[in-house]
This record gives sequence, C-alpha cells and structure tokens, in this order.
Amino acid sequence: MAKEKEFVKEITPQSEDFSRWYIDTITKADLMDYSPVRGCIVFKPDGYELWEAITRELDRRFKETGHRNAYFPLFIPESFFEKEKEHVEGFNPELPWVTEVGGEKLEERLAIRPTSETIIGYMYSQWIQSYRDLPLLINQWANVVRWEKRTLPFLRTSEFLWQEGHTAHATAEEAEAETRQMLDVYTDFVENELSIPVIRGQKTPSEKFPGAVATFSIEAMMKDGKAIQAGTSHYLGDNFARSFEIKFLDRDNERKYVYTTSWGMSTRIIGALIMVHGDDRGLQLPPRIAPTQVIIIPIGPAKTRERVLLATDEVYAQLKAAGIRVRVDAREDLSPGWKFNEYEMRGIPLRLELGPRDLDANQAVLVRRDTGEKETVSLDDLAQRVPVLLSEIQQSMYDRALAFRVERSEPVSDIAQLHEVVRTKRGFALAGWCGDRACEAKIKEETGATSRNIPFDPPQTLSTCVSCGKAAAHTVWFARAY
Amino acid sequence: MAKEKEFVKEITPQSEDFSRWYIDTITKADLMDYSPVRGCIVFKPDGYELWEAITRELDRRFKETGHRNAYFPLFIPESFFEKEKEHVEGFNPELPWVTEVGGEKLEERLAIRPTSETIIGYMYSQWIQSYRDLPLLINQWANVVRWEKRTLPFLRTSEFLWQEGHTAHATAEEAEAETRQMLDVYTDFVENELSIPVIRGQKTPSEKFPGAVATFSIEAMMKDGKAIQAGTSHYLGDNFARSFEIKFLDRDNERKYVYTTSWGMSTRIIGALIMVHGDDRGLQLPPRIAPTQVIIIPIGPAKTRERVLLATDEVYAQLKAAGIRVRVDAREDLSPGWKFNEYEMRGIPLRLELGPRDLDANQAVLVRRDTGEKETVSLDDLAQRVPVLLSEIQQSMYDRALAFRVERSEPVSDIAQLHEVVRTKRGFALAGWCGDRACEAKIKEETGATSRNIPFDPPQTLSTCVSCGKAAAHTVWFARAY
Repeated sequence: MAKEKEFVKEITPQSEDFSRWYIDTITKADLMDYSPVRGCIVFKPDGYELWEAITRELDRRFKETGHRNAYFPLFIPESFFEKEKEHVEGFNPELPWVTEVGGEKLEERLAIRPTSETIIGYMYSQWIQSYRDLPLLINQWANVVRWEKRTLPFLRTSEFLWQEGHTAHATAEEAEAETRQMLDVYTDFVENELSIPVIRGQKTPSEKFPGAVATFSIEAMMKDGKAIQAGTSHYLGDNFARSFEIKFLDRDNERKYVYTTSWGMSTRIIGALIMVHGDDRGLQLPPRIAPTQVIIIPIGPAKTRERVLLATDEVYAQLKAAGIRVRVDAREDLSPGWKFNEYEMRGIPLRLELGPRDLDANQAVLVRRDTGEKETVSLDDLAQRVPVLLSEIQQSMYDRALAFRVERSEPVSDIAQLHEVVRTKRGFALAGWCGDRACEAKIKEETGATSRNIPFDPPQTLSTCVSCGKAAAHTVWFARAY
Repeated sequence: MAKEKEFVKEITPQSEDFSRWYIDTITKADLMDYSPVRGCIVFKPDGYELWEAITRELDRRFKETGHRNAYFPLFIPESFFEKEKEHVEGFNPELPWVTEVGGEKLEERLAIRPTSETIIGYMYSQWIQSYRDLPLLINQWANVVRWEKRTLPFLRTSEFLWQEGHTAHATAEEAEAETRQMLDVYTDFVENELSIPVIRGQKTPSEKFPGAVATFSIEAMMKDGKAIQAGTSHYLGDNFARSFEIKFLDRDNERKYVYTTSWGMSTRIIGALIMVHGDDRGLQLPPRIAPTQVIIIPIGPAKTRERVLLATDEVYAQLKAAGIRVRVDAREDLSPGWKFNEYEMRGIPLRLELGPRDLDANQAVLVRRDTGEKETVSLDDLAQRVPVLLSEIQQSMYDRALAFRVERSEPVSDIAQLHEVVRTKRGFALAGWCGDRACEAKIKEETGATSRNIPFDPPQTLSTCVSCGKAAAHTVWFARAY
C-alpha cells in the first residue's frame, strides 16, 4: 500500500542473512502480513493470487487424471482420531480442540482437521459397497490447522491452505499406481509450472506420514541450500480401511478391505517458489505461474506522453490478444527508474519499455528479470517474440535452479563430511544408510540434517552407512530442511 | 454410487411433503451426505461441482468490479468480538470455541469465524493510512461456522462455504454505492445464471446484520411458497471503523474514520436453486450453471450399436467444439428408459437421443428437461440449434419461476389475511408496516412469517400497518422463510 511508495525499504542481501532476506522480500512484495492469531498469517491479494494460479493448474491436472472435488467437515470428532494409532500419535500435539459452543460444553471434543483421512475414511465406509464403486477418486481444497511452535510465513503456519486427495482402490497394486501417478502430477506441476527441479523418492520410516505404509516426496533445494518438501503422496495400504471398516464386495463375492492413498500440496509451495528463485532484488516469478507476465512502462518526457500512451495501449491490446497476462503502469507521479525497481522486486518476468525514440524506430525494449538481458524488438514482432522469450525464461530459471542444486550436492562417506556439506557448504549430502533409525537420529543430532528421501534415481549408489559404517541398505539424501 | 443403480428409490411428490421431496431429491441426485459431525454435511462431487460453477461465475464478477481475493485466519480472538457490541451479541450463541491445543489451555479463547468483519477490521486498521489506500476492495472465499440448532442440508448447516466481501472507503456515499453495486452483482448472477427471480430491498432493523447500519437483501420464493434470503449486502457505516480504529489521512490532512461494507453469498444458494426449479421428477438445472448441459444417449438394438456410437462421438465432438458442456452415456447394461429417468432426476437441461432410424434420416431428437418438449434436428444443424435451445430453457425457467412467485404473492390488509396468504395459500404477503418492532414481532408470532425486506420497487404502496392499523411507514414483504 502507500507506505511502500513513500519509504523504500531495502532488502537484506541473501548472503548476509537469508531469513531476513526472505521476510524482507515477502513483506516488501506485499504477499502477506502477520495476523493477531499466533502462527497464522494473512494472505494479501498479491500472495493469494499466486495461490489462485497454483490451484488452477493443480486442479486442472487432478481433473484430467479422473479426480473430482468434494468437501468434508472442518471438525473431526475425537473418537475418530483414536481409530488409527500412529495417526493420532503423530498429530495429537498439534491439534486445536473445540470444547464448547455458545455457552455449552460439548459432549465430545472436536478437533480442527490437521488432515482428513479419518473423517473421509468414515464416509468412504458408508459409500463403498461394491467393486463397482471403485476406484473412488476424490480431492478436497481446504484449510487445515497444525499448531506449530516455530512458524515461518507460508512455510510453516498454524493454519494453511492445501489440497488433499483421498482415493480408494480394489487392489494394492492400483493404489500403489495411484500414489506414483500423483507424485508424477506434482513433479510435472512443480518442474514445468514453477521451474523448480525436484528430487523424487521415498521417505524413510521415521519421516513418513503417520498411518502410511509408504510416503513418497518431491524435495527441492532453496538458495540457502536447505530443503523443502514440496509435495507428498502416501500409500496407506489397508491401514485406514481396517480402522474404518471400508470394505467392498468384490467380483468373486468376497468382502475385502480397500486400499487407500492420500496426497497433498499446500501453500508452503509459495515459500519454495520464493526461496528457489528470488535474489537480492526481490522475487522472481516463472512466467507460467506469474499473475502478470509482462509489465509495460511508458517512458519519455511529458510532451511525448500522449503519443507514447497511445502506442502503449496498442501494444497492450496486441499482447493481451496473444494470450499474455500483461499490465501497463502509466502512473505519472512515479519515475520509470522507480518502476523498474518495483517490478523487478515483484518478480515480473519481462519488462517492456516504450519511449518516443523507440516509437520513431517502430520498436520496444524488452528486459528479462532473470538475466537482466535487454533486446529491442520491432513492434510488429512483439506478439511473436514475447511468448518465445517467456518460455526461454521459464526454461532458463529451471536450468539455473538445477545447476545450483547439482553444484551444492555431493556424496559423503562419514558424518564429519556430511556436517561440512550441509552446514559449511550449505547443500545436500548423498549418503549410504544401513536402515537403522538410530543412525538416522544420530545424523540429525550431530548435523541438524534430516533424511529427505531415498531417491528413485540417485546419481550414484553408496555402499556403507555414513553413521555406523555397516553395509548400506539405501542411498539417501540428507539436508537441513524447512 | 452403485446402490442407486440397483434400487430405484422414489422421490416423494412435492405436493405430499415438500421437505421430504427436498431430502429425497438431493440424496438421490447424490449431491450431499450427512456427516458424523452434528449439523455438518459432506458436499459430494455432484453437489460440490455446483458450488464450483457458482464460485467461478461470482468470482469473475467480483474481479470485473475491481475486487481482489485474500485470505484471513479461521480463528478470531475473543477480545476482537467484544469490540463491536451488537456484533458479539448477534453471533455469540452460535460460536464454537477453541480452548485448548495439544494438551494445553489457551490464554485467550479463539472463536471459529462466523464471519470476518472483526479480524479483517483489525488488519485494515494496520493497512490503511492514507486516502491513497482507499478504496480497499477485498473478497475472501472461506468456510465459516455458525452452530445451528435446527439444520437442513445446504440451507442451514453448522459449517458452510461462502464468500465474504469487505471493503473500506473514504466517504459514506462511496461505501453506500459499493453496497448497492454488490447487490446488483448478486441480482445479476442469481437472475441470469441461476434463473431465479429475486426481490431486492432493505431489511428491517430487527432483521439486519449485527453491527450494520443497513442490510440489503435479495429474496427468492421456493416452490412451497417459503422465502430464501439468497444474498446480503451490508452498509456498515463507520461502526467497525470506530471499533477497530480504522482511520486514514485525507487530502485535507485530517485523520478520518473509513466507511465499510460487507457482502456475502453462501452454499445455501444451492438449496435455493433446487427448491426453485426442482419438480417431482427431481432436479432442474438452468443451462448456464449446469455442469453438464447436454446428455447424449445412444439408442437402438445391439446390431446397430457400433454405427450409432460412431455418430454419437461425432455429435459429441461437434457440440464440445461449440463450447457446450456435453457428456455421453454409452453404458450397455442400462436401458435408454432408465437413463432418461436418471438424467431427468439429475436435472440435465437437454437430452439428445440418437438411434439408427435417426441416423438414416440424418437427425437427432432433443428433449427439454423443463417442458418435456421434443424436437428433431438435422445433425448438420445441432451446433447451431443446441445453444439456442439452451438459452430458451434458461429464459423459460426464469419466466416460470417469476410467474409462480407473482401468482403466489398478494397484498394484505390485516393479520388474518396475512396468515391466510403465507400459511394456507403458501405465498408472500405484501403489507403496510408502521415501523414498530412490536408489530413485526406480533406478525411473526401469529403467522410464523418474518419480514423479508422493504422492496426497492414494490408492486404497490400500502398505507396502513397490517398489525396496528396506524399509518404505514413502509411497504414490506412478509413470508415464512428458510
């Protein structure tokens, strides 16, 4: 709002203090504000607009893969949680409880949902009777609450927004295939829309979802070398089916338990988007997800203004007709230089400058946010050139992020090395692991790093455990994580 | 799900028991299910799909009128409610309270939001500093909770989904204009997308929103003659600005309170859609909002099946290319007759039948859900004819609903007449009212009818109070209401 226009607040450089950089950036770009409720943020319009773009793209992919949306209650009766032992233990410390309504105490406490496996499991037990009801492929867009001790805007807030898919299948194989398919959907979305390269793999048992048989994740590296789990897909086996008696009459006339999955992506992906691409000048948004892809800034003295604005309108109409999300900033009380900084800070992928001399030459200047490269383009070619440039930016942001991650990742053979990679060099360490939880715990205690996942496709296979030196059962990525 | 296919459950006729008809219809059409949480329903995919269509159309209109979406916390600290006296009194009996998290008691209780004026008011007091920050035009899509004693699916549930707009303006005039504008937006949406004619007007003081200066509403008549308040727009004056100290520095260098508005439409509109248009065969969806506008049903014996299906695919592609939301039901184990009933029950506006004899004649049969009229159309003309028919259905559903309301509405001059109109004839009564709350309360007690609104444009003006016989200050619509 107006304050920003009046007081230019500097962004702390990433190299000086990455956390300060993050808070400065999201504040200055007006994405969020702190709320008076502990650990809950307000998504301001520019921040919420990113979430709208994310939901649109994810929702389209869910529907294309045969899922439909539904909506289940916010409240979960206490008795439901207790039906799945691991689940209740995993979530209990973070649950807010509604104990009274109006002036009266409730007979049974109601939790605010931290995730909806239990209530959806109960409903599925009512809906599923026969093999003809399967597969049941449902997604929910909702708010969920997990009371967090330490919070960070977007990345870890007590209330957050997300989608949670919940599916039921006749066989374990089908449910496993669904779990993989949704991990593929997340990968496609995050890599192609957000230009964030991810590492795909399986979580170790200590990091899996409470109640799951197996959890798969996509993990991304932030610019400070820390990891963010960008999305997870869980194969729940028949655990929830047994807890909630979700059975179906199969073709062979036997009553069997279904196999279920769940998968989710949340507003924390906004935090990842910022931390993967942002730089000391502010945000950098990949063109495919940017609410505004091109900002047009008319320049030149007052006497040529009218002529320039006419041309600006034409360029605007031309780009809009080409399907580009474009805006014009024609405010007169702000200098072009101020505007250049402003839109660089807001991460708009491409700036289009148009002045009287450009008009004389029938051209405009395009400036890329990612590289700062400038080029002059004939006004007649803009509608062809801009989409090409936008896709070059999209790809180049991905390539840069991938190169950064590769450069910051290395194999290690003992804990001292692992410590050096994750703390001194600030990166990801690939390590052998024997499979013992004690070794994983020791690594965490000594280095602060957690196992991110057991990658499907590791760059190499390591044969001894980084902690105990015994034979490794798995090759695992370790990193400090948000 | 499968159960429905196996057991055809009859829908209770409207004339026999309208409430039973409603529950039978929404259950059979698979729109919702009851949840294990008191007063909360599950929106099943077919029901949620209606809400998705509604949100898409409303959201577009909000953005076209300059509003942006944001998201505020679910929780509201107790102290916030107490800042606006009328507001807290209005909502207190319905508020669920979070009193503990994990195992620990909270220092301050948190309410689950029943509406967000208070928390948004607090944020606005932080964001608004100068006249340049105004107007502030924000909308939120969210779940809200109002614990209800008596619930009815969609129409009155403890948790429901809605949008709530919250705007702040420099002057009372601007805020009043916004209040009216949003009532216009609601009217346009409900009349043109949902084919529901509405009565626009102002709520009496006893029916206005707690904390508002004035509440405006659109009211619709259901097929049982009862009213539903389909949307409300509130002018809040500077009430919330004073409670939350929302002030701005004006051009004249004085600090002034802003004027605010709020406006909302919720999932109860789905209930209205069903009760205005449904009939003894089930749902009737207006084409513009129907998730599926045309259902194609191939008919004829097995030996012609392949040929018919080829033609069906062509017709499907042709209609889809024309921007029509179309589906094919080619299931072989179900008869055409069963399918006709099924899609009539589900309210699909238009059925397209295609059999071998139609193909010989290069034609298809179109059957309207609203009138049952059939026509044969050349296959070459389908892409032209179907959109025309869909808009005729849209208009004709509106006309029918309007004629029904007009027929069931009449002016009354005493309470006995009012009683007869709202209870025996099951309609709306137009009555003079002196402005005294006691008269309004007496009418409610003796007839069960509440004042719906003081219409902007009454069919006639009445000069004496229907209750006390004194001079009328207003002409008011009274009705029994959901």
